[in-house]
Amino acid sequence: MKKIAALLIVLVSLNARAQSNSQQDSLALRKLYDVALLHGQGYAWLDHLSNYIGGRLSGSVSAQQAVEYTKAEMEKLGLDRVWLQPVMVPKWTRGTPEYAYVQSQGGPSTIVNILALGGSVATPDTGLRANVIEVQGIEDLARYGREQIEGKIVFYNRPMRADLIHTFEAYGGCVDQRYSGAAEAAKYGAAGVIVRSLSHKIDEYPHTGSMSYGDVPNNERIPAAAISTKDAEYLSSMLKLNKDLEFYYKMNCRNYEDVESYNVIGEIKGSERPDEYIIVGGHLDSWDVGDGAHDDGAGVVQSMEVLRLLKESGIKPKRTIRVVLFMNEENGLRGGNKYAEVAKKNKENHIFALESDSGGFTPRGFSFEARDSQYEKIQGWKPLFEPYLVHYFARGGSGADIGPLKNGSTVLAGLRPDSQRYFDHHHSATDTFDAVNKRELELGAATMASLVYLVDKYGFDDIENESEILK
Amino acid sequence: MKKIAALLIVLVSLNARAQSNSQQDSLALRKLYDVALLHGQGYAWLDHLSNYIGGRLSGSVSAQQAVEYTKAEMEKLGLDRVWLQPVMVPKWTRGTPEYAYVQSQGGPSTIVNILALGGSVATPDTGLRANVIEVQGIEDLARYGREQIEGKIVFYNRPMRADLIHTFEAYGGCVDQRYSGAAEAAKYGAAGVIVRSLSHKIDEYPHTGSMSYGDVPNNERIPAAAISTKDAEYLSSMLKLNKDLEFYYKMNCRNYEDVESYNVIGEIKGSERPDEYIIVGGHLDSWDVGDGAHDDGAGVVQSMEVLRLLKESGIKPKRTIRVVLFMNEENGLRGGNKYAEVAKKNKENHIFALESDSGGFTPRGFSFEARDSQYEKIQGWKPLFEPYLVHYFARGGSGADIGPLKNGSTVLAGLRPDSQRYFDHHHSATDTFDAVNKRELELGAATMASLVYLVDKYGFDDIENESEILK
Repeated sequence: MKKIAALLIVLVSLNARAQSNSQQDSLALRKLYDVALLHGQGYAWLDHLSNYIGGRLSGSVSAQQAVEYTKAEMEKLGLDRVWLQPVMVPKWTRGTPEYAYVQSQGGPSTIVNILALGGSVATPDTGLRANVIEVQGIEDLARYGREQIEGKIVFYNRPMRADLIHTFEAYGGCVDQRYSGAAEAAKYGAAGVIVRSLSHKIDEYPHTGSMSYGDVPNNERIPAAAISTKDAEYLSSMLKLNKDLEFYYKMNCRNYEDVESYNVIGEIKGSERPDEYIIVGGHLDSWDVGDGAHDDGAGVVQSMEVLRLLKESGIKPKRTIRVVLFMNEENGLRGGNKYAEVAKKNKENHIFALESDSGGFTPRGFSFEARDSQYEKIQGWKPLFEPYLVHYFARGGSGADIGPLKNGSTVLAGLRPDSQRYFDHHHSATDTFDAVNKRELELGAATMASLVYLVDKYGFDDIENESEILK
Repeated sequence: MKKIAALLIVLVSLNARAQSNSQQDSLALRKLYDVALLHGQGYAWLDHLSNYIGGRLSGSVSAQQAVEYTKAEMEKLGLDRVWLQPVMVPKWTRGTPEYAYVQSQGGPSTIVNILALGGSVATPDTGLRANVIEVQGIEDLARYGREQIEGKIVFYNRPMRADLIHTFEAYGGCVDQRYSGAAEAAKYGAAGVIVRSLSHKIDEYPHTGSMSYGDVPNNERIPAAAISTKDAEYLSSMLKLNKDLEFYYKMNCRNYEDVESYNVIGEIKGSERPDEYIIVGGHLDSWDVGDGAHDDGAGVVQSMEVLRLLKESGIKPKRTIRVVLFMNEENGLRGGNKYAEVAKKNKENHIFALESDSGGFTPRGFSFEARDSQYEKIQGWKPLFEPYLVHYFARGGSGADIGPLKNGSTVLAGLRPDSQRYFDHHHSATDTFDAVNKRELELGAATMASLVYLVDKYGFDDIENESEILK
């Protein structure tokens, strides 16, 4: 009887504690959202990053300006520490804008819109002119063989699937053409490659992005460009009429030696467990076309905003909360690798890392890389987010920059904003400030801050203990 | 024992039926989404409505063009019947664009952006020039009294709350200033009113909308205009410096006698219960500024698309499915009232009405006006929508046009798209085709078609019977 009474008391007090915690948490989240929506700072930061600094490709002057600007802004926030973490990054420049046209023998030429892929070699000084072979993917190369490919420009034209609800899945189903298309085509003696832009939208803007030559020797590397979806459709339709048409392009891009750059880091020291780290971040670099507003200016300012929201809301974290603005996500991931390398060397215990690198659109939720017990605990917080129309808590990838922290115990998470418009802007000239909605950006920052607040408050290390008590 | 065995058989067969239904339903929804995303028609219709026809205010030539265009397009769909339902609508014209400025005595004038509210009287031919009294809402008028208001322009400047997650709630908290502000201010002898535009965004675009003079006699009606949020902020800051500044505006709008227009209706006859009606609709009219792309071109084309998707997916509805494109939602609701009046006269049994009039953004779910048993049945369908990231099934308002059908048994529903950007465009020059994303529009149509499919398949009339069987 005594045992039952004691158990009852434990259960009742656990229940009361849970209820009071839940009320506290509801209020804390409301406060974070209020500060974000009524006194947000992220939109003004993004304005500066996009409109005053602009595209911030690794190794560029504007990337350095972004380092200096965000460091200075973080210093204004009264964090406990702000610093730069040096990292060597690749440097590639586009040079004079590309020029390309399609021409049938003796006919007029039609100019088309292309962008060199990041890391591509240039065309010869006089440009490259060749016949075109259209393929629906790398797997087609073997079917056509060297005989039909040699000396030609391989035109990868597999579109992103429109029937997939998560647009990142559609992207994932096509990105191999861009990343490895040149390396694979070179093996069959292709003279160059043209890749359909990774966008659902049919328009005139080409979308650049990273590519790799893999183990193709320097002297066998061929120029690679993205072509706008509209021009890809045009080129494909022209090829149906005349498979002997010629494609001409001239690109002036160039690879340099690595240069020094920085991750920008700020932190609030934990009041109870300063040696446990929670990090939140995005990447500071962007492509050189457009202003990197969604990719990933949004993630940068949301991550900075998380720390500001915690401070402004009077939340004193138990654990150390860090914002990390990673350099060089787009074409090297050197910043993410460096951060993880240093964290490991310093034996820093990272319990949680959250990245925002999917655009500044209305937040729909998060995807997690976590152990079952960790994931279950997180699922318990879901109802707290419902008033903010944040419903999606699922397993899935987190973020490229925090990926190197993966060790089986650190929980990794990615903010999942509405993805329908993202690839309209991604890596193109239309990734500009006006494409970002202030409220959507702010809701994302508040949603991230809310998750950070909960992870800081409850952590993950006590899961086994608690479940033992309750047994 | 026999009874138990019989019950068991019933339960097992009910369960098996439920499982097979659920699989069928999953496949049916997937098909609807596939057709919408891979072979959608709505975006092309919206292009025509927005870019070829444009703003479609009741009684205008373009409203008539929209009637003829949508009727012709519906006729191409092979519906069982397409017709026009005549309705008399108000006719109001803006005339020569408005002109307004702020001026301090002897100082230079600063032009500000205004739009006459729909239904407003014009200013005198030479314009109206007067001092300004800023208020935060209608309730302030009594506090200032006739003494401080008479002869002045009342400037309603209460902004939409930014902390509310549902932007329609923020709109609801301010729209009285626009709708009734002039009627109320006239009672205190005001010379005119200027209303802060109902938008969260601080920009130069004024947002018009309907207003009413209520019982204010014709000769006491005062001109009413919306001012852009940016200029509202400017005017407010200038008033702080100089409360004696003058505001000048000239408006050339005019009210005419009612004219005839039409609701456009199409239907697929039900195969089993043709006398039970399910309707889906939006409103065909729009304001005269902008192109009415989100409000409510999106709802119009999504509603048409619902019938097309059902046909293309090979679904033969048991009940009669109607699309109704309502005329005159914006400034009279005559179309909605007429439709309900005729339906009642013809004793048509409407079991369900769904409206899309909240923009063409990513669908988040629906809000319902329904009895408890109906609402519970609908909640049971929620899991079917999760793969499409449609999570929000809540009680709430449905749509203005279908409101008159409310009778305690017809279930009313409104599509709830993401609302964060809606009021950036609502009733302003920026409500244009380019602000609508193709995929978001298509997802909305598929989401609506899915709900219509489920209501048609399961209905609501058997709820009581089924629960009796299960007892």
